[in-house]
Amino acid sequence: MEKLRKLYEGKAKILYETADPELLIQHFKDDATAFNAAKRGTIVQKGILNNQISTRVFEYLEGHGIPTHYVRTLSDRDMLVRRLEIVLIEVVVRNTVAGSLAKRLGLEEGTPLQSPVLEFYYKSDALGDPMINDDHIRLLGLAAPAEVQAIREQAMKINATLLPFFAQRDILLVDFKVEFGRHHGRLLLGDEITPDGCRLWDRTTREKMDKDRFRRDLGRVEEAYQEVHRRVCGP
Amino acid sequence: MEKLRKLYEGKAKILYETADPELLIQHFKDDATAFNAAKRGTIVQKGILNNQISTRVFEYLEGHGIPTHYVRTLSDRDMLVRRLEIVLIEVVVRNTVAGSLAKRLGLEEGTPLQSPVLEFYYKSDALGDPMINDDHIRLLGLAAPAEVQAIREQAMKINATLLPFFAQRDILLVDFKVEFGRHHGRLLLGDEITPDGCRLWDRTTREKMDKDRFRRDLGRVEEAYQEVHRRVCGP
Repeated sequence: MEKLRKLYEGKAKILYETADPELLIQHFKDDATAFNAAKRGTIVQKGILNNQISTRVFEYLEGHGIPTHYVRTLSDRDMLVRRLEIVLIEVVVRNTVAGSLAKRLGLEEGTPLQSPVLEFYYKSDALGDPMINDDHIRLLGLAAPAEVQAIREQAMKINATLLPFFAQRDILLVDFKVEFGRHHGRLLLGDEITPDGCRLWDRTTREKMDKDRFRRDLGRVEEAYQEVHRRVCGP
Repeated sequence: MEKLRKLYEGKAKILYETADPELLIQHFKDDATAFNAAKRGTIVQKGILNNQISTRVFEYLEGHGIPTHYVRTLSDRDMLVRRLEIVLIEVVVRNTVAGSLAKRLGLEEGTPLQSPVLEFYYKSDALGDPMINDDHIRLLGLAAPAEVQAIREQAMKINATLLPFFAQRDILLVDFKVEFGRHHGRLLLGDEITPDGCRLWDRTTREKMDKDRFRRDLGRVEEAYQEVHRRVCGP
């Protein structure tokens, strides 16, 4: 498969068209941004690590009955995916208090949640990805009520599948962001699942192994991504 | 009924205990605040106008099958109400885009909504009343799922009742905030319904007749409250 026209360039990835109108190439960059791109930088080799981490996670999810846009991995930084009509909702699932939830509700980071908390955000850089509810989704025409329900169920199933996956690798899945899209009427998990969009803590030391090391200038960013890669993709 | 111990002083009202442990006196002040009390001022006679406006609205709602904490009006600024165990959720119902909805979703103020939009906020001055969803309500233990559903239905019924009430008075009910509480297991509408917590526009000129005149320094604040009072309480 060859990259043809660049379809879209985002903060961490580029999407290219291919000769097959049904398929795109998702190219992983080393660029990192935070706080709606107010902070920018590079995490060396991130694109390569994230492509492989996401490959492993997508294959695992597919094996557990969760349909994704993943087709196959083409090279270090390139993944072949199904073309999606993206749903402009960022779905966040949380198992432990962290980040904006701690700030929003005045809760201590690290507090375990008795059952997962799900949040919807409007995928809009211009608006800073504001939190939205089902009425806002209807108002903006982002998804039909039945589709919102399917997204909610799918996100909860992904969480239930990934919690033990990461736990077996001594990683606490604190929270994660996923995006969905439509492909011939089917709802598929899109985007990526990597330390860019998940909070991953070492289960024992609770050390952060994700983009919070970049966001909060905690240092040893590359090492954290490498360690997640080692635990997720290693033998 | 006599005011006994001051139970709680808020930004616009004071609650006093009475000799009857089931009943409180809600006293309306002239104080006005905005932006989580970052802006403070006085709207002359507001307490008197709001007590009478709220009296009229509560009596109207009670007459249309919506249970409220209202018992009777005692004086210019004092209303006798049932003692509630307050639910720490501010419920906002919107019929037209304005205020934070315009900002959050990048929509133009004044755009009519095809069906009402309901939002929940966590009633917490310390946190700046953040928007929350059903999962946050469960996490914070603010209300049981069945109670959240009852609150949602009651808020929609209040909206459906107040829309024609205000329309008959040449007022567009743009949006409003309500609070609920429990009284012997029953869910009652609490707080007040006044230009402090509703956006009310003249139906023809679309002139603002509510606290936005204070928030946005539009002038003629007292006149707006007086005009709402005239239309709501007049013959």
